[in-house]
Amino acid sequence: MRGVIMYGPGDVRVEERDDPTIVDPTDAVIRLAATCICGSDLWPYRGADQVDHAKMGHEYVGVVEEVGAQVTTIKPGDFVVGSFVISDGTCEICRSGYPSSCVHRIFVDGAIGTQADKARIPYADGTLVATPGQPGPDLIPHLLAASDVLGTGWFAAVAAQAGPGKTVAVVGDGAVGLMGILAAKQLGAERIVAMSRHSGRQDLARHFGATDIIEERGDAGIARIKELTDGFGAHSVIEAVGTQESMVQAIGSTRPGGNVGFVGVTHDVQLPGQLLFLSQVQILGGPAPVRRFLPELIQLIWDRQIEPGKVLDLTLPLEQAADGYKAMDERRATKVLLTV
Amino acid sequence: MRGVIMYGPGDVRVEERDDPTIVDPTDAVIRLAATCICGSDLWPYRGADQVDHAKMGHEYVGVVEEVGAQVTTIKPGDFVVGSFVISDGTCEICRSGYPSSCVHRIFVDGAIGTQADKARIPYADGTLVATPGQPGPDLIPHLLAASDVLGTGWFAAVAAQAGPGKTVAVVGDGAVGLMGILAAKQLGAERIVAMSRHSGRQDLARHFGATDIIEERGDAGIARIKELTDGFGAHSVIEAVGTQESMVQAIGSTRPGGNVGFVGVTHDVQLPGQLLFLSQVQILGGPAPVRRFLPELIQLIWDRQIEPGKVLDLTLPLEQAADGYKAMDERRATKVLLTV
Repeated sequence: MRGVIMYGPGDVRVEERDDPTIVDPTDAVIRLAATCICGSDLWPYRGADQVDHAKMGHEYVGVVEEVGAQVTTIKPGDFVVGSFVISDGTCEICRSGYPSSCVHRIFVDGAIGTQADKARIPYADGTLVATPGQPGPDLIPHLLAASDVLGTGWFAAVAAQAGPGKTVAVVGDGAVGLMGILAAKQLGAERIVAMSRHSGRQDLARHFGATDIIEERGDAGIARIKELTDGFGAHSVIEAVGTQESMVQAIGSTRPGGNVGFVGVTHDVQLPGQLLFLSQVQILGGPAPVRRFLPELIQLIWDRQIEPGKVLDLTLPLEQAADGYKAMDERRATKVLLTV
Repeated sequence: MRGVIMYGPGDVRVEERDDPTIVDPTDAVIRLAATCICGSDLWPYRGADQVDHAKMGHEYVGVVEEVGAQVTTIKPGDFVVGSFVISDGTCEICRSGYPSSCVHRIFVDGAIGTQADKARIPYADGTLVATPGQPGPDLIPHLLAASDVLGTGWFAAVAAQAGPGKTVAVVGDGAVGLMGILAAKQLGAERIVAMSRHSGRQDLARHFGATDIIEERGDAGIARIKELTDGFGAHSVIEAVGTQESMVQAIGSTRPGGNVGFVGVTHDVQLPGQLLFLSQVQILGGPAPVRRFLPELIQLIWDRQIEPGKVLDLTLPLEQAADGYKAMDERRATKVLLTV
């Protein structure tokens, strides 16, 4: 079968590799219907993370081909959506709602790599969720988004305690930030402020539910958020970038007693203790426990309540994965869907 | 009247200064019954914070002598307990439960200084709470503790979401850490692990409700907490020191999805973003919103349900304040009560 390998920064190739097979009785093998390129894949692509012949891809939907003897909730022929983190679904951490910190956690990226024709998914019951039936092609991008960007944006909004009566600010206008906007709207937020200076993304932000756009960044961005909120700051802030500037901007934009949900993979961030102490904001983040939200998100998509796949603004065949990386790197695309 | 002034590090003197009077219609003037020395007073005493002729003291109980025309909830003759932060009680931040971040916040320490005979308390309605009647002398130390250390330990336990079924770890065996133990017990925690290597404080920790003591620190301390919790870490961790080591120890001791309540005034702390991201713990801290908890804490003390004043293990007259600072600096006393 084919699979995407990142040889090194900027060097992405599609290669032949062995078809996966069932190894453990809790495994499933799936044939992918679609996969995509994640903003986080750009960190190694740009040389900010080390990379050496890595199997790429961690977002995936597809049809189950085979399951191990102990798999009970899915069967061959089922269409499934999976989380970007493998989780057993049974440990105390999974049961408490944090499958992305499962004691048996495996990051799909690198270890499995779903920019490929097929994938072996360990702990299939704890990682995959079957859709109510076979989806039409129009639903595929939306279901694919649930695998990471929607689930991650959703977690950020939940961690930020977005909800009725709340003003939610979103730092970062990439796919995850946009999904945070969608999530905040679904969760009932009263006002949603997108921090974005990219006109195409501002349009998408408004489409997903943003009521206000702020183009300023850093201290100027914080000042604008405070202007909009009687000087207090937002109740809930979603951080979807992962840099020092974005984290400080997110914390500074939050009122005392408010909440920051941070899901941008942090790079070279050092948070001053005094900032955390004096800002008196609650912060929660990390790799999103997508599996917790998948049943609900799949149903919302199935019922056509949400269309998260709209963040996928470029579709390419798997063979052209390298072009997809390039388009995202150059910000010509927000997020690329790869057909398999 | 007399008041304590810190001229500089290690230099504490009791001096005469003018009696306070009502300035604003929301003020009260109180005659102090007792005050105390806080662990945080040791930062400037030791030269870790700048200090120059500062009015010291921010914990206080006493009798109201006079109130301004707009004060409605207390009257002359009432015995009152006050928060270490002045708060108006009416702004949106106060009403959301964070009076310590009130838009009109004043830190009593430095600006007012309650190691004195009397004090003017601005925003008396939003800062002070009257006791149900005149307390006997035996209740004074307990009520005094509510003013900061109990209220702060309580907030830390609430922020750490201590409660039934939870294992709570407490980093720091000073007065606030000990009060965190008391609070965790009151909130129904199942298991309370005190991290302490000081035998006298271990005894107090057990008295207040600790079920386990861990003497190790840093990585070794984290490893011991994990041993006690099936490898997961504690559900709730109270941080009551404020150093880089204690913050990292607190976060490392918490299971994914767990909560850290941090109330040690942070000094030279820089939290690595990746630690926060991968640990997936929720953190909340800062200056405790003591005023939120005062009515409940006063009632618990009045009903003799809790005896937080036991952390006050040395009593001296105000005149001997300098001796009190020295005793705490040399760790001969956990916390010093000054009679006025």
